[in-house]
Amino acid sequence: MIAKIKVTLKKGISDPQGQAIKGSLQTLGFGNVQDVRVGKYIEILIDEQEMKTAEEKVKEMCEKLLANPVIEDYTFEITEV
Amino acid sequence: MIAKIKVTLKKGISDPQGQAIKGSLQTLGFGNVQDVRVGKYIEILIDEQEMKTAEEKVKEMCEKLLANPVIEDYTFEITEV
Repeated sequence: MIAKIKVTLKKGISDPQGQAIKGSLQTLGFGNVQDVRVGKYIEILIDEQEMKTAEEKVKEMCEKLLANPVIEDYTFEITEV
Repeated sequence: MIAKIKVTLKKGISDPQGQAIKGSLQTLGFGNVQDVRVGKYIEILIDEQEMKTAEEKVKEMCEKLLANPVIEDYTFEITEV
């Protein structure tokens, strides 16, 4: 199975990287860019047959390592390979 | 409109960050993790009414700034806010 995980900064948390990209895009002429938020996209290949078990494990991976619960949110979807 | 962009390393390009996360997950007891690939997830808020125009602009943003065409691929979807 493959898990596709998005880790994003929580609303209200400042995003200097996003602001830097926004400035660069505007400098390149993309004047209608209003806001940019940058996060992580992680794909994990797991040797697991049961969808429910895979979901529990990916949730645990996110909470233990992949996302900082204080400043980040995460979402994921799992598909058969 | 909001563009949701995934920037990922092309197949065959080494991913030291992904390998480091894989090692950490296995150390934490997730033995069935076979591979990890890490990329960027970027959300851009654009003041644009036409979907087609927005798509063209996001494509241009990806090719000019957000993705390195030599080592990265990108995909995106655009939704009304």
